[in-house]
Amino acid sequence: MAGNLQLTPEGKLKHFLTIEGLDKSLLTEILDMAESFAGMSDQQVKKVPILRGKTIVNLFFENSTRTRTTFELAAKRLSADVLSINIATSATSKGESLLDTIRNLEAMFVDMFVVRHALSGAAHFIAQQAAPHIGVINAGDGQHAHPTQAMLDMFTIRRIKKDFAPLKVAIIGDILHSRVARSEIIALNTLGAAEVRVIAPKTLLPAYVETLGVKVFHDLKNGLNDVDVVMMLRLQKERMSSALLPSESEYFKCFGLTGDKLKYAKPDAIVMHPGPINRGVEIDSKVADGPQSVILQQVSNGIAVRMAVMAMVMHPHGVSV
Amino acid sequence: MAGNLQLTPEGKLKHFLTIEGLDKSLLTEILDMAESFAGMSDQQVKKVPILRGKTIVNLFFENSTRTRTTFELAAKRLSADVLSINIATSATSKGESLLDTIRNLEAMFVDMFVVRHALSGAAHFIAQQAAPHIGVINAGDGQHAHPTQAMLDMFTIRRIKKDFAPLKVAIIGDILHSRVARSEIIALNTLGAAEVRVIAPKTLLPAYVETLGVKVFHDLKNGLNDVDVVMMLRLQKERMSSALLPSESEYFKCFGLTGDKLKYAKPDAIVMHPGPINRGVEIDSKVADGPQSVILQQVSNGIAVRMAVMAMVMHPHGVSV
Amino acid sequence: MAGNLQLTPEGKLKHFLTIEGLDKSLLTEILDMAESFAGMSDQQVKKVPILRGKTIVNLFFENSTRTRTTFELAAKRLSADVLSINIATSATSKGESLLDTIRNLEAMFVDMFVVRHALSGAAHFIAQQAAPHIGVINAGDGQHAHPTQAMLDMFTIRRIKKDFAPLKVAIIGDILHSRVARSEIIALNTLGAAEVRVIAPKTLLPAYVETLGVKVFHDLKNGLNDVDVVMMLRLQKERMSSALLPSESEYFKCFGLTGDKLKYAKPDAIVMHPGPINRGVEIDSKVADGPQSVILQQVSNGIAVRMAVMAMVMHPHGVSV
Repeated sequence: MAGNLQLTPEGKLKHFLTIEGLDKSLLTEILDMAESFAGMSDQQVKKVPILRGKTIVNLFFENSTRTRTTFELAAKRLSADVLSINIATSATSKGESLLDTIRNLEAMFVDMFVVRHALSGAAHFIAQQAAPHIGVINAGDGQHAHPTQAMLDMFTIRRIKKDFAPLKVAIIGDILHSRVARSEIIALNTLGAAEVRVIAPKTLLPAYVETLGVKVFHDLKNGLNDVDVVMMLRLQKERMSSALLPSESEYFKCFGLTGDKLKYAKPDAIVMHPGPINRGVEIDSKVADGPQSVILQQVSNGIAVRMAVMAMVMHPHGVSV
Repeated sequence: MAGNLQLTPEGKLKHFLTIEGLDKSLLTEILDMAESFAGMSDQQVKKVPILRGKTIVNLFFENSTRTRTTFELAAKRLSADVLSINIATSATSKGESLLDTIRNLEAMFVDMFVVRHALSGAAHFIAQQAAPHIGVINAGDGQHAHPTQAMLDMFTIRRIKKDFAPLKVAIIGDILHSRVARSEIIALNTLGAAEVRVIAPKTLLPAYVETLGVKVFHDLKNGLNDVDVVMMLRLQKERMSSALLPSESEYFKCFGLTGDKLKYAKPDAIVMHPGPINRGVEIDSKVADGPQSVILQQVSNGIAVRMAVMAMVMHPHGVSV
Repeated sequence: MAGNLQLTPEGKLKHFLTIEGLDKSLLTEILDMAESFAGMSDQQVKKVPILRGKTIVNLFFENSTRTRTTFELAAKRLSADVLSINIATSATSKGESLLDTIRNLEAMFVDMFVVRHALSGAAHFIAQQAAPHIGVINAGDGQHAHPTQAMLDMFTIRRIKKDFAPLKVAIIGDILHSRVARSEIIALNTLGAAEVRVIAPKTLLPAYVETLGVKVFHDLKNGLNDVDVVMMLRLQKERMSSALLPSESEYFKCFGLTGDKLKYAKPDAIVMHPGPINRGVEIDSKVADGPQSVILQQVSNGIAVRMAVMAMVMHPHGVSV
C-alpha cells in the first residue's frame, strides 16, 4: 500500500513515508542526490533555488528539536519558505480534526507537509488525504518508521564504507520501541548489506524482526563479533512500562556499548546513534566521543539527505543541482 | 471615531480596525486589489516586493493558528519580514504594560502591528497610541470586530455571485459571541446587499442587531427561504456561560445546517463558515464538504485579502501590483 | 580567562562574553561600527549582506522578548538566517546535556550562538567548548554579565554626550540582582568616565562593587547630585527572597526616581533604564516618559550595537560596511 502511495506511476518519489516498497535504485538515487548537496554544503552551505516559491509546513505533533531543525535548515537551503505549526496550541485544540487542519493548510497554497506524529500511520493518512500536488514526508510516526533517519544513516555508512555489499551491521538495543530500527533493517537489506543483526534483550524485541531476515543475538559480545557498523538505539525510557524497564545500570552492563565491548567488532567499525544519546545508559561517553563514533556526522548528513528527499518529492521529474 | 482613526485626511486606509465608517468605494478598492493578488496567487503564488524592507509584527494575545498563519503567508508574499511575538511569555508577563510593549517594538523600527486580542477595542487603542508611520490591522478583538474575515467573505461572495445588489444573505448561529457577525452585517449593507438576515435563538442575539437594519429570524427554515448566501457561525462554546449553553444535539437540531434545511435556500446558494468548524454541531459534515460549500475557498481568499489590506495600509498613496 | 577566550591572537573579537578584559580601543571599535549601522538604520533600516549565508542560533534558556527580538532583527538586517531554539521544549528535556545540544547544532553547520541563560558562566562554557569557527555572544547570564546591554547603553551615552571623559554616571537600584550593573561599571571605567556611582540600599549591594572603583551612596539625592547620566535598574522582584524584599511603596519612596529627585542631577542629565520598567516602583511614569528619558532610544540603539557585535565576531579580520 505505502509503496504505491509514495510513488508516481513512473516510479518516482511522490511522498516519502517509509523505506518499505522502495527499490535499490530509488534509495541509491536519494543517496546520490544527497551527495551532490553535501558536496556543496560542507561547512559553507550555499543556498540553491530548487524550492524557491514553495511553502513547506512543519507539522510536528510531537516535539523533536533535532529533526525539526534539520528539516527547517534543509528547506531554507533549498530557498523554500517554512511554516512551523505548533499543533498543541493550534485549532486542533478547539476541536478541529486533523483532516480539517490539513484541508485548511492546503487552502493556503502550501506545497509540502513534513509530519511528526506519535501515532503510527499518521503520515500515510495525510498522504492519502492530501491534494494531488502536495508532497508528504514522514519525520517519524509512532514506533513505525523514521525513513529520513534511516537514509541519513545509509548515507553516513556509504560515505565511509563506500559499498554495502560486504558489510555486517549490528543494530543494538531497544528495537521494540524504536521508530528507526525497522526502517534501518529494510534499508540495509534493500541496499544489499551482507548481514544485518539485531542485538537486544528478549523483552525489547518485536515479533516482526523474524520476518525481516535478520540474525538475532541476545549477547552483545557475540553479536558485535566482526561487524563493520555498530548502530546503537536510544533507550526509549519514556515509552516503556515500568515492569519491562530494566534498571539503567543493569541495561548498561548488558547492552551498553563500552570501549572493551567495541573491540569485538572490526577495528575499523563505525559507531552510530540517532540521538539524543543517553550517556552511560546505552553508550559510554568515551565511545560516543571516540574516534570510531560518527554520531555527529550523522547529524550533519541529515541536512543533505533531507534536502535530497524534499527536492525529489517536489520535483519527481528531476532536479538539476 | 474609528472611522476617522483609520483613514488618512485624503480618505485612504491608514489602519484597518473595523468595517464601520468605511464607504463602499473603499471596500471595493480592497476587493479589487485582493483580486489582483488572487489572480497571481492561485496555486502558485509569486512573491511581490511591495513590502520589502518592512517589518510586520504579529501581536497575538489570543491564539489563532488560521488567522496568524494566513497573515504570515500574506506578509511573506509581499516580501516583508515577520516578527511573531508570543505575548503569553513576553515581557508583559513581567508586568510590562501593553503600551510599553508597543513603544518598545516601535523603537525597534517596526512598521505594522497585526493585533489579535480578547478585549474589544485593543487594536483601536494601539492605533491611537502608535507612532504616525505605523499601520495597525485588527485581526479580531473580543466580540467586536474581525474586519479581514468580513472582507475575505465579501471577496468570496463577489467572486462567485459577481454583484451584491440582488443578494439575500443569512447569518446563522451564535451572533452574540461572534466577532465576525457585526463586521459581516456592516460590510454587506455597505456593499449594497438586498437583504441581510440573522437567524439565531433569542439567547444568542445581541441587542445591537436591531440597529443594523437586518431581518431577525428564530426559525432556520423560514430564515433560509430563498437566500443566496448562507453564512454559518462557529458555536463559541468556550465563550458561553453554562446556563446559556444549549446542548450540542439540541442546538444542532434547531440551528445546525443539514442538507434538508439547505434546500430552503436557493438551489445555487453558497455555504460559508469562518472556521474552525464544529462538525455535527452547527453544520453537518455533508454540507461542510458538499458542492455548495465554499469554506476552503474562504481560507484561500484570506491570503489575497490580507495582502491587499497590508499593502494599502503601508502604501496609502497607492500600490502598483 | 574570559579576556583571552573572547579575543583572537591578534586582539580582535572572537566571542563577546563580558566587558571585562576588553580595552578602550576595542569598545570604541564596537561603538564606531554600531554608529555606521545606526546611521543607515534610523527609521528605514536597509539590509546589508554582511552575514549572508550564516546561520545564527538564538539559544534562549531564559525568556526575554526584548533581547531576543532585537538580536533577531539585527541578524536579519545583516542577512543572516536565524534559528530560534526553545530550550524548555528541546532535547535537553529528554536528558540531553547542554554540551551535546551544542555539538549537535554545530554539526548542522551553524555559525554563531547567542546565549541567554539563568546561570552565570553559561556563555563562557559554550565558548570554551564550541568549534573554532563558531562565535558566541552572551545575551545575559545569571547575575554575571549582559555585555550587549552595556554597550548599547554606552552607545546611547556617547551619541548624546559625545565624550565619556567629563561624565559623572550614577547607577541606581538593585545592583545585587542585576546582570547589567557590573557590565556597565566596567564599560564606563574602561571608556574613561570621570566618576561612576552606585546608589542602593545596603541589602541590594554586592560585595564586588568595592573592588571596581565606584563611589557608593545609600541616599538617592546625595548620589544624584551633579550627575550627567542616571541609569536606573529594574527591581528584580522575581530574584529576591521575601525577607530582603522591600515593599514597593517603601522602595519607591527611597530609591524611586521622581521628577523632584531628578532635579538634583544636572539639568541636562539623561535618564536610562534597560527595561522592562516597573512604573511607580523604581521610576515614576512622568520621568520615564519625560524629556530627559532616553529609554526608547536605548531600545533602538540595541539593534545597531548587536549588528556591530555580530558582524565583528563573524568577521574578526574586518567588515566593510
